[in-house]
Amino acid sequence: MSDRPKFVEFREEGPREGFQIEKKVYPLADRVALVEALAETGLKYIQVASFVSPKHVPQMADSEQLFAAIRRRPGVHYAGLWLNEKGFERARRTPNVDLSAKLSLYASDAFAWKNNGCSAEEMRERQRRWMDLYAEAGLPIDNALVMAAFGCNYEGEIPPARVVELARWTDALCREYGQRLPRFFLADTMGWANPDSVRRLVGMVREALPEVRIGLHLHDTRGLGAANVLAALEMGVDLFDSSVAGLGGCPFASHGDATAAGNICTEDMVFLCHELGIETGIDLEALIECGRMAERIIGRKLSGHLIHSGSLAAYRRARPAKAAE
Amino acid sequence: MSDRPKFVEFREEGPREGFQIEKKVYPLADRVALVEALAETGLKYIQVASFVSPKHVPQMADSEQLFAAIRRRPGVHYAGLWLNEKGFERARRTPNVDLSAKLSLYASDAFAWKNNGCSAEEMRERQRRWMDLYAEAGLPIDNALVMAAFGCNYEGEIPPARVVELARWTDALCREYGQRLPRFFLADTMGWANPDSVRRLVGMVREALPEVRIGLHLHDTRGLGAANVLAALEMGVDLFDSSVAGLGGCPFASHGDATAAGNICTEDMVFLCHELGIETGIDLEALIECGRMAERIIGRKLSGHLIHSGSLAAYRRARPAKAAE
Repeated sequence: MSDRPKFVEFREEGPREGFQIEKKVYPLADRVALVEALAETGLKYIQVASFVSPKHVPQMADSEQLFAAIRRRPGVHYAGLWLNEKGFERARRTPNVDLSAKLSLYASDAFAWKNNGCSAEEMRERQRRWMDLYAEAGLPIDNALVMAAFGCNYEGEIPPARVVELARWTDALCREYGQRLPRFFLADTMGWANPDSVRRLVGMVREALPEVRIGLHLHDTRGLGAANVLAALEMGVDLFDSSVAGLGGCPFASHGDATAAGNICTEDMVFLCHELGIETGIDLEALIECGRMAERIIGRKLSGHLIHSGSLAAYRRARPAKAAE
Repeated sequence: MSDRPKFVEFREEGPREGFQIEKKVYPLADRVALVEALAETGLKYIQVASFVSPKHVPQMADSEQLFAAIRRRPGVHYAGLWLNEKGFERARRTPNVDLSAKLSLYASDAFAWKNNGCSAEEMRERQRRWMDLYAEAGLPIDNALVMAAFGCNYEGEIPPARVVELARWTDALCREYGQRLPRFFLADTMGWANPDSVRRLVGMVREALPEVRIGLHLHDTRGLGAANVLAALEMGVDLFDSSVAGLGGCPFASHGDATAAGNICTEDMVFLCHELGIETGIDLEALIECGRMAERIIGRKLSGHLIHSGSLAAYRRARPAKAAE
């Protein structure tokens, strides 16, 4: 328990990951309102939308308009996502996009083919091209993320040593370009992680790259999200991707059941941190209201808990604990 | 981690707690089928129904018929619940009810009034009468349970020392009757527990009563269920109440929102144990099918995760991990 961080950073993915996975296209005004409300909670990093093919992902066809419509709050990073050079160019041309340079890797070859149409090896080699593009744009590397780091529905268990090797490779690549890798995200894309595998992999990556900050991108697909976050906190992890109201998820995570849970839920995990005495800089009550807004926009029950139960703050205010007993 | 149990027992509460909280009365045949399916999974303790006022709880008006209709599986304990002598007498007269003597206590006076119409002190004193009744019936005490052990929506934080005092009192009562208290359940009735408070309270009760087995009755009201179970496992707790598909919950747990999550979900927590290498004696795949049956019966999306995502077994069978890497 002594390794627990004092402060944890949550990077909000709901507006992008949540609305991208939906079949329906939601009104621009609703998504703008959600992003603006999230920015008022103390969240410092919000992934707003992706710059991907409007033919394949019509939900994100209006990303330029979405970013343009946002009234910015100072100190908040409004991130976009791109998967190819065309997308990156769109992001560069779009007002209000805070560009951050990200490298993407696959721990599963089978999933790389499924999700990206190339081998994991090919994807890795493509990162050199991204290093060049980011260097040309004057963007230092913000982070690298390895997908399916814990397991893969198409390949089974992922040996942790493979992820460590990818981490070393990425760190070496950054050094070739005169940079250091600041953050390395382990993504449990398809919901395979458990508290033991989280501890093991975080421990191994940290041992290999002690100066790199480790982040976790976890999904709550099989209900272990909160337990995995707890295990990570106790390993000192202080950086998580998450989604308001538990939006999002991976279309390949479950047995084709669209009702499977998505990303770990930001407000529920902020609550976990606060209950453990860990600060987040986030106004939990305001964030719960954002989760309720997300549920109203989506129009069906979402998997977050606090949006339905409320936090404990109101009960504590109303009836403080008796001190002497 | 070294304190982790090798084997964990889950006591299934879904058939009683799940259907009792619903507004609707569900067909007897559906509930019989669910109980019988649960008994085939390896679960050894199933709370089938309660013997309470049919006027106040019409959902449980047919408890006699439900028990009578069950085809029993040897080795399974089919439990009933009663709150007063009349209910106990009904249970005694009903075929297939495996009577087990249980004591009930409140850590919150305000909640005792709300839920039971008497003070916590009065409720405690009533346990003497139950000791007499159980002694007359030749039933040794199976367990005692303390409600609102971690916190209360009507009273706020519950000082752990109060719960320890109740545990000592109950143990002393059992000794008066020449018995030992075998199991003491800490119930997080309204979803206040967090991993730290679980560790603290379990540690304090164990220190006070080292020979009593500690059980946890947890709700997932605020999304910390899996994290709380993990913390408990690492304290050596090997006994949990839970509900298939996450049925159940406390009508007083949330801000009056009926969609708040219920009890911790049996199959999700069995999955957690199995992933951590802890045995449960339960066939997870069969249990997931029970959860899906529960969801079909209830007729809306339930909060369990594995019923929507599936477990990892099929993926592992299809593509075993490469051994050498």
